[in-house]
Amino acid sequence: MKITIIIKSIMLSIQADLPFKINGGKQMDLSLIQSIAKENDTKIVLLVMDGVGGIPNNDQNQTELEAAFTPHLDKLAEESICGLQLPVGNGITPGSGPGHLGVFGYNPIKYQVGRGVLAAGGINFDLQHGDVAARGNFCTINEEGKVTDRRAGRISTELNQRLCNLLQENVNIPGVEIFVRTVKEHRFLLVFRGKNLSGEIHDTDPQETGKKPYGARVKHDGAKYTAELVDQFLSQSQEILKDEHPANMVLLRGFSQKPKWPSMKSCFKLKSAAIACYPMYRGVSKLIGMDVLETGESIESEFETLKKHWNEYDFFYLHIKKTDSYGEDGNFEAKKKVIEEVDRFIPGLRALNPDVIMVTGDHSTPSKLAIHSWHPVPVMIWSKDCRADPVKQFNETACLTGGLGSRFPAEDLFPIVLANAKRLEKFGA
Amino acid sequence: MKITIIIKSIMLSIQADLPFKINGGKQMDLSLIQSIAKENDTKIVLLVMDGVGGIPNNDQNQTELEAAFTPHLDKLAEESICGLQLPVGNGITPGSGPGHLGVFGYNPIKYQVGRGVLAAGGINFDLQHGDVAARGNFCTINEEGKVTDRRAGRISTELNQRLCNLLQENVNIPGVEIFVRTVKEHRFLLVFRGKNLSGEIHDTDPQETGKKPYGARVKHDGAKYTAELVDQFLSQSQEILKDEHPANMVLLRGFSQKPKWPSMKSCFKLKSAAIACYPMYRGVSKLIGMDVLETGESIESEFETLKKHWNEYDFFYLHIKKTDSYGEDGNFEAKKKVIEEVDRFIPGLRALNPDVIMVTGDHSTPSKLAIHSWHPVPVMIWSKDCRADPVKQFNETACLTGGLGSRFPAEDLFPIVLANAKRLEKFGA
Repeated sequence: MKITIIIKSIMLSIQADLPFKINGGKQMDLSLIQSIAKENDTKIVLLVMDGVGGIPNNDQNQTELEAAFTPHLDKLAEESICGLQLPVGNGITPGSGPGHLGVFGYNPIKYQVGRGVLAAGGINFDLQHGDVAARGNFCTINEEGKVTDRRAGRISTELNQRLCNLLQENVNIPGVEIFVRTVKEHRFLLVFRGKNLSGEIHDTDPQETGKKPYGARVKHDGAKYTAELVDQFLSQSQEILKDEHPANMVLLRGFSQKPKWPSMKSCFKLKSAAIACYPMYRGVSKLIGMDVLETGESIESEFETLKKHWNEYDFFYLHIKKTDSYGEDGNFEAKKKVIEEVDRFIPGLRALNPDVIMVTGDHSTPSKLAIHSWHPVPVMIWSKDCRADPVKQFNETACLTGGLGSRFPAEDLFPIVLANAKRLEKFGA
Repeated sequence: MKITIIIKSIMLSIQADLPFKINGGKQMDLSLIQSIAKENDTKIVLLVMDGVGGIPNNDQNQTELEAAFTPHLDKLAEESICGLQLPVGNGITPGSGPGHLGVFGYNPIKYQVGRGVLAAGGINFDLQHGDVAARGNFCTINEEGKVTDRRAGRISTELNQRLCNLLQENVNIPGVEIFVRTVKEHRFLLVFRGKNLSGEIHDTDPQETGKKPYGARVKHDGAKYTAELVDQFLSQSQEILKDEHPANMVLLRGFSQKPKWPSMKSCFKLKSAAIACYPMYRGVSKLIGMDVLETGESIESEFETLKKHWNEYDFFYLHIKKTDSYGEDGNFEAKKKVIEEVDRFIPGLRALNPDVIMVTGDHSTPSKLAIHSWHPVPVMIWSKDCRADPVKQFNETACLTGGLGSRFPAEDLFPIVLANAKRLEKFGA
């Protein structure tokens, strides 16, 4: 135990040294940027096309971005500094949380968050410090207790609501308050509130069919009490759901507790807003203090929301989900079409007269692989003083020769965005 | 002992993780270079054109370097390894101190120095460890005590000398020795010498007119005693200067103490000399143990000084100030002309037969912005063995595709310079 503590303190001191050593020696930690960030009346838009990066996957050996007709994104690229960014690191395939934290300027290895916490943020659940949150799936198990469908046939949100109410009303575990809340389709949020809870518990989801769900396995001994509570929840839920079909069991993932992170306001002096229709992205935005704006599910609705709130914020994060969804479906054409749809909103975005625009993704989701991947993601930063490079198209091949380089660390993008927005003081005399 | 071993192995594994984060992955600290630096009879010239980097600002969408006629710099680029360097970090606009320390091979975040200390070095004031130095401005205040001109109309150096003498003779603070020394025009140096002094005091300069100067505000409680001394200095100065015009008050900035830094001799085994006509650059050079050579204010005089002392040193830093001055004036044509003037001295420099030449700036000062900026700075390193890249011009666009890359950390340049000068031993067996 003592050894663990010593090691942790050394790890922290090493992390504290990192700023000198990172990214060409240039990675700054948030405290340095925080010390020089200043207010201004400039406006910044970050457009994230989820999973936009690809690898060649059509008969012309093109990526989705290369195949798409994107005259407005290409025009923006011509006036921007471009490159390919690494969300987390070389060879690392990012989840959506780290992928976003990087482009928000937060080191995604230092700032890690569990899926449970993200799910809570996504449905505006008021998670307290000390709570333990987990992402739940309703699933189907057979008579032997083995999982036959990890998503219970993607049940309707309405059915999900009835099942959540059933669990909420009937699960009873002394000493702890429990919240079961619908997210969407088969997904729900589970929160334990009480004393001495820990998020150090492994997923119960076996990740494949034909296996039984796991019980609550601890990562550290300090989580034993919480694991007992989770096991009680699992056994009671199985009993309560036993006559339901197809959703007769639950799988739990991403046990976690709300982290205490610095906000975008405190780090960057930005009044910031998120425009995202999917819960997870709303969740991660809230963790760093963004206001989450009400918006519809269409891309058009998201850009309308941007326009509607234009005068209220310094920084807008606008999230496009469908590039990733179609990428994960392996649907090259549909992903390409989403990119083309986004392209048609670029003139309207520019008409708002932002001072800085950054366009990128949180990771690549090549339709060829139908899953998140490790490939660097095209990025461009536009402002009237950005010192545009010769890149004239926004895609993987063209951005290779951009001024940001071909493997630019995502978390270093934000200081450049702030500099272009004239929101950083000079460093040193 | 066992614990130590465990910890060390963890530290190594964490250090091994660093490359994730490093752009080029290979930033060394000074101790490593120090351990392999060796003497040789090779000669190195570092030519720093202050603020040389720009952004497009003429009707051909060119930077100052791109517009300038620079046949000799371009010829040198053709035979050099080129790139763009980041003085401090992505998005960071460097002051002149950090901008120089980086190209001297010192990490500018680790080696921070106050303006007071730089000012002392600049006028050859023999600052002692424990002294507190501040940069002073003579300013004008009105009857209400509010600043109406932060530079008192840029009074003459002669008037400055009279006022400094007045303060030197009449300010009297028990327990501390005070030095008031003319720098140039409205600028002076203030030094407190005594026991238990601290430099942790905020600027008294309100940075804008219409406000009263601040009193001495401490950054830490340990500076309270020094702050009392500073407040006494301020009130006595105001009384002594009350009938002067326009310089009837003082503003103090950059309170700081002389740092204990390793010298260029101890780090790199270089006997080094600075050729710079502006005080600040002479100051920063002295902090790392360079000899500061007497020189005139013209570029011609600086190159003559180089020739005159050619046999006496291993390393020469030659500083051109006017590229920055005209950049800050927003004068594109004048900045371009200074670059062209420097170009004409390149054949003479090469005729001295140096082994290594590095040409760069300490930061960008685009005339379009008329202020220091965050944009990477063109750099080239020439030696007969440098492995020249295909870049054939010395400017922002051409250097983008150079062998050093488009965002090379400034403090990593110096090891390459030393290697080209055959002044580094092999690392490892």
